[in-house]
Amino acid sequence: MDATNLQIFSEFLGTLILVLLGDGVVAAVSLNKSKAQGAGWVAITLGWGAAVTIAVYVSGFMGPAHLNPAVTLGLAIAGDFSWNLVVPFFIAQVLGGIVGAILVWITYLPHFEATKDEAAILGTFATGPAIRNYTSNVVTEAIGTFVLVFGLLAFGQNTFADGFNPVVVGILILSLGLSLGGPTGYAINPARDLGPRIAHQILPIKNKGGSDWGYSWVPIVGPLVGGALAAAVWMMIPL
Amino acid sequence: MDATNLQIFSEFLGTLILVLLGDGVVAAVSLNKSKAQGAGWVAITLGWGAAVTIAVYVSGFMGPAHLNPAVTLGLAIAGDFSWNLVVPFFIAQVLGGIVGAILVWITYLPHFEATKDEAAILGTFATGPAIRNYTSNVVTEAIGTFVLVFGLLAFGQNTFADGFNPVVVGILILSLGLSLGGPTGYAINPARDLGPRIAHQILPIKNKGGSDWGYSWVPIVGPLVGGALAAAVWMMIPL
Amino acid sequence: MDATNLQIFSEFLGTLILVLLGDGVVAAVSLNKSKAQGAGWVAITLGWGAAVTIAVYVSGFMGPAHLNPAVTLGLAIAGDFSWNLVVPFFIAQVLGGIVGAILVWITYLPHFEATKDEAAILGTFATGPAIRNYTSNVVTEAIGTFVLVFGLLAFGQNTFADGFNPVVVGILILSLGLSLGGPTGYAINPARDLGPRIAHQILPIKNKGGSDWGYSWVPIVGPLVGGALAAAVWMMIPL
Amino acid sequence: MDATNLQIFSEFLGTLILVLLGDGVVAAVSLNKSKAQGAGWVAITLGWGAAVTIAVYVSGFMGPAHLNPAVTLGLAIAGDFSWNLVVPFFIAQVLGGIVGAILVWITYLPHFEATKDEAAILGTFATGPAIRNYTSNVVTEAIGTFVLVFGLLAFGQNTFADGFNPVVVGILILSLGLSLGGPTGYAINPARDLGPRIAHQILPIKNKGGSDWGYSWVPIVGPLVGGALAAAVWMMIPL
Repeated sequence: MDATNLQIFSEFLGTLILVLLGDGVVAAVSLNKSKAQGAGWVAITLGWGAAVTIAVYVSGFMGPAHLNPAVTLGLAIAGDFSWNLVVPFFIAQVLGGIVGAILVWITYLPHFEATKDEAAILGTFATGPAIRNYTSNVVTEAIGTFVLVFGLLAFGQNTFADGFNPVVVGILILSLGLSLGGPTGYAINPARDLGPRIAHQILPIKNKGGSDWGYSWVPIVGPLVGGALAAAVWMMIPL
Repeated sequence: MDATNLQIFSEFLGTLILVLLGDGVVAAVSLNKSKAQGAGWVAITLGWGAAVTIAVYVSGFMGPAHLNPAVTLGLAIAGDFSWNLVVPFFIAQVLGGIVGAILVWITYLPHFEATKDEAAILGTFATGPAIRNYTSNVVTEAIGTFVLVFGLLAFGQNTFADGFNPVVVGILILSLGLSLGGPTGYAINPARDLGPRIAHQILPIKNKGGSDWGYSWVPIVGPLVGGALAAAVWMMIPL
Repeated sequence: MDATNLQIFSEFLGTLILVLLGDGVVAAVSLNKSKAQGAGWVAITLGWGAAVTIAVYVSGFMGPAHLNPAVTLGLAIAGDFSWNLVVPFFIAQVLGGIVGAILVWITYLPHFEATKDEAAILGTFATGPAIRNYTSNVVTEAIGTFVLVFGLLAFGQNTFADGFNPVVVGILILSLGLSLGGPTGYAINPARDLGPRIAHQILPIKNKGGSDWGYSWVPIVGPLVGGALAAAVWMMIPL
Repeated sequence: MDATNLQIFSEFLGTLILVLLGDGVVAAVSLNKSKAQGAGWVAITLGWGAAVTIAVYVSGFMGPAHLNPAVTLGLAIAGDFSWNLVVPFFIAQVLGGIVGAILVWITYLPHFEATKDEAAILGTFATGPAIRNYTSNVVTEAIGTFVLVFGLLAFGQNTFADGFNPVVVGILILSLGLSLGGPTGYAINPARDLGPRIAHQILPIKNKGGSDWGYSWVPIVGPLVGGALAAAVWMMIPL
């Protein structure tokens, strides 16, 4: 495997782990009879923060560990990533999201069978709005992803002790979840939403309802716009 | 932009991010239909701690990242910061607080519209006392800010691994919130309170009540007194 | 004591501390009249994460601090550990688990006497399934341990600042608990389950029921299979 | 001030901050009308962990930052600390505990006045047993302090990145609180208990009851025995 393919594989594997651990905590808290049922928002946001930290460690020694199309797009706009690899990275990230979500389903199989709530089941795969308002939901996702991508660009200006960067990225995700996640469940990552939504569509889940494709563009467009804006603002800072 | 203006911009941007993420977690926990509603004090204090860590990373490569007039005043008294920049920093910090609070309002717009509780709405902008007693509230804010500024001065005597300092600052904020935040909601930062209170006053928020200007001097005077006292005590330590 | 015996002692002591602190948090949250009773899943997962971090620090200066037969097996398969020491490590780890669990019983003695719930008592020693389905439970334990061992192998490819590695391992355990722990209570470590189950069998605990030996093979076989698979997949990555 | 006096002052100041932040979180969670009331065991244990981390940073650049007579005794037995300073350190630590508790009372003054529950008030100063059984309570405190002092001795064998050690100490305190704190509220530090108990005795607190001097020897004897045993076992490890 050459260096480029190893990077693409790294995106696939890292996003797989990200979604396995990230959607996993939503399954843990939401599904019937889970030992973590009802553990609440602190559990979910700690779980997603830790998931991103671990996913970056597990894939970061093979590639740049974007694990998120909005990050890939933002870094390409900012001149920190080759445009040639943008589409391959997108595809690897979404495929990783699909496989990660399938593994969540396998991990929690008896609990999916014990759960009748269609919204809870869909929520363990893809995000959904607390109040459905597409304009506002897109804006919320764009603001969250703006802070994410701007933060990652700023981290690049800091010097970190060896191996410390993925922990700081995890703190950023924890912060975004706690602070900006209330309205839309903070996709802030098109692959984290689209990949699992495809898995929800194709898997033979017992009590599932529709995959809410009407909302599916929001966690794609919002994050991509927010990430692109962050890169544009970033380039205006004189460094 | 020269180096001084970049520092002033850094204070504006850092305080903006601080208030966006900090007031954001209060909005997440307090507003109706938010996915985080009722997540409680652990969520709020973790959220503020992470917010400060991220705000320092995002602005700290451009300036000293005080993000707080009480810190700026304390460091100036302790001789660690130029008096010439104190007023420009104050202004940049308050402006950052205003814009950060406006962004919280935009992020949670449908949830502000779904919330009727005037106190909850004001609480997502500015602090308020659990028991209104101006003397006691000022003392509580002064004690909290004393520990904050004394802690930051002590951190300056420690050596930190690259990039580790903002995490320690976040742990300090987490500690202050958990331990000393119960009576007044720990402003411990005049800009964090005044900026959002101005935003609350001027924004066309649907169900808002008054901006409680009668209390507004407490989270200004208390922190400035506490920060100044910390610097004075600090200078008495023989090093 | 020669270097090999010191390593074996290190496994015994580290697993003892791991189970004392890990089973300790389950006792704290589950037993009657404990000050932590009902503190919930966030407390349990934070407690296990911190327990592993501390156990690795306490034993890691004397040996490799596997503290887990699935880790020992995985590293041996991956060529990172001598096969000669695998069985001695297994024995030391299980003995550490037994003694650690006895110390939990001593620490919480009046609370064990005040607790009538046989399942809660057993749960402070060994894991059990939320929904009993041996096939699915084995798969869940294997997936969790796969991520654990794959993660540890990946950490070996990262460079860490001095003393930082055990904190990252703790974050990994926190993540596995929050995200994949809902169905089986995440043994992901045969010694952590078998050692305390033996202690439960032999201790004169006042209100205990059976030790559920019918389930006991699941948290042995699942983790060993998952750890071995992680090592096998790891070796296919071209580095 | 010579170097020895600076070290003694460091113990006083560090223990003051430790108790201000540590007893502060108990006040925050326990007292009437506090914004943190009912935040629970996770808040208390996170608060004590962060309190210790901050207290060590704030005092550690002036001295060894034991902040705990059981640690001072253990390190003296292990040969890592001069016996000449043991009694001066004890006195400074207890005095710091008294002043720290007085500051908690000042910080939460209106909340102490709004609280009628005598046990809750005493609990914001000193520890008490969940089930009163002096033998068992002493054993529990000894086991917890054994792990504390053994852990600190083991940390001394690890190499840490600059400024990282106090964070690891905080994780150890978090772990001890979550895992071994259920029966006695984990004093694991005679100064943390005796100092505030003296403050409770002498302060004119409105609704206070007795200071439970009958229990006061338990969080002195248990920790000192546990710390001494840890040092004794430590010295038997061949290094």
